[in-house]
Amino acid sequence: MPEKSTGPGSGHGPAAGLPGEYGRYGDLLQPALEALLPSGEGFAGPVVEAMRYSLLAPGKRIRPVLTMVSAELAGGDPASVIEAAAAVEMIHTASLILDDLPCMDNAGLRRGREALHRHTDEATAVLAADALLMQAFALLGAAVAKAGLAPGEAGRLVKAAADCVGVPGMIGGQYKDLHPENTDFDSLEYVHSHKTGALFTLSATLGARLSGAGQRVLECLEAYAKNLGLAFQIVDDILDARASSRELGKDVRTDTNRATFVTMFGERHARTVAAELIETAKVSLEPFGDKARLLLQLADFVYQRKK
Amino acid sequence: MPEKSTGPGSGHGPAAGLPGEYGRYGDLLQPALEALLPSGEGFAGPVVEAMRYSLLAPGKRIRPVLTMVSAELAGGDPASVIEAAAAVEMIHTASLILDDLPCMDNAGLRRGREALHRHTDEATAVLAADALLMQAFALLGAAVAKAGLAPGEAGRLVKAAADCVGVPGMIGGQYKDLHPENTDFDSLEYVHSHKTGALFTLSATLGARLSGAGQRVLECLEAYAKNLGLAFQIVDDILDARASSRELGKDVRTDTNRATFVTMFGERHARTVAAELIETAKVSLEPFGDKARLLLQLADFVYQRKK
Repeated sequence: MPEKSTGPGSGHGPAAGLPGEYGRYGDLLQPALEALLPSGEGFAGPVVEAMRYSLLAPGKRIRPVLTMVSAELAGGDPASVIEAAAAVEMIHTASLILDDLPCMDNAGLRRGREALHRHTDEATAVLAADALLMQAFALLGAAVAKAGLAPGEAGRLVKAAADCVGVPGMIGGQYKDLHPENTDFDSLEYVHSHKTGALFTLSATLGARLSGAGQRVLECLEAYAKNLGLAFQIVDDILDARASSRELGKDVRTDTNRATFVTMFGERHARTVAAELIETAKVSLEPFGDKARLLLQLADFVYQRKK
Repeated sequence: MPEKSTGPGSGHGPAAGLPGEYGRYGDLLQPALEALLPSGEGFAGPVVEAMRYSLLAPGKRIRPVLTMVSAELAGGDPASVIEAAAAVEMIHTASLILDDLPCMDNAGLRRGREALHRHTDEATAVLAADALLMQAFALLGAAVAKAGLAPGEAGRLVKAAADCVGVPGMIGGQYKDLHPENTDFDSLEYVHSHKTGALFTLSATLGARLSGAGQRVLECLEAYAKNLGLAFQIVDDILDARASSRELGKDVRTDTNRATFVTMFGERHARTVAAELIETAKVSLEPFGDKARLLLQLADFVYQRKK
């Protein structure tokens, strides 16, 4: 059961390749992901089974770790935001299931496993993706209730999460990604800031907001996450251009019409841009001093990762 | 522009066939639905256009009317819950788009128009449906922020909405509806209480909760909505069994393996059951006296409707 493995050195566990200190977040997260799935009572068992298949597949878990670390940075307890951390991983997993659908990228491999629509069927995959989105919002509702936020802040936080996934965020980015005609730098940056940057930013601020962080802390985390997200995507493009599907555990894009940072700038320049973004992300954390150690390590991991 | 018509007598307007008094809710709702769609800035214009196509198609608008009337019953102002009313109509529209997909019912006609996946394409239809769900949660977030609810109540309300759509609600019901093997009365009741009843109940309580209603009021409204939703679905089965697609403005199910209340009980008995449910729904409203007049009329409309 590789999905149960949480050790940083296991090589195929959920936190594979992440710095050693992240082990304790993985230890919190992995059982929580399983426990926070809805129950499969009634006739909906196979939908929950499909959610579990995709959610518990080995993943890097960067987004939920961001949520837990940001809570700690704001003086909170990582365990107290575990529902929100699970929620962002559910949102991310839902987006992967939908991206892989036959009507989207028609991908067969994801996180080293058959894509969900092939493992089960297309209707179940669509329902499981939407059910993961809904469970994420159920958990966010529970999280804002538990955190005892002021009603205005509770509502704004829910709205920010919905806008992150919706047209102003990931769905807008996915639409443009599916329609790559006339792609220039601006539209490529639009795709990635919407598909990847939006959820990185939500993840990195959610824990802090639930822990009562002030505006200054949130602005630093937003700047960090935005640059980290774009760097993550550029590294993705570089890995896609070099590696095989087996190494990445997902289909490598064969659509040569699709512009990437590598096709646009060449690999060497793309890597320079990624390095600059990582540096900018790190600079945003200066006000936190040594407290930002884990986020600095995460930035290095994003730059150096091999899958 | 038939979708702009709100008069009860127009025959094809959004509130077609609803009692005359509902006109004023339609007058509030129709421009709000349009105004509360996300902006199509950046590259996401076609997704917003697809959302608009399905959302503004002529519909009965029973769910948002329930939300507005329930606000009034709890001493609130219908206009003050317009975001929540729009949210439930967006959730309903998203469920219709998803139900019609080729991998689900593969339906071609909806609300008298081509189903969205045929009007545009499947990927855009999936994105538009999910974008409607996300806009609904953005609006619910704004609504709970505006209502100034007690801290825990804001989060619980968001969780209730997410559970209504997710595995414990509509998605659970849709999965069973797609797998009609061994259908008996219990599983038929499960499908309808989850696919239809859950959103009727959310709609009928949302306005009241946002207006600060107490537990007793909510329990009456829940009992009303639960019975109304089941009656609505039985009448749907009766209309499906009798009418043509052109009359209903949607595909009539040709899958004779699918059990319905009509195939299970015969039309005459199904109509008797519906009448009993409507009576039970009305009895739940007795504590409200004359203030429940509109909800009583709506119950009669649900029983008598011809489409």
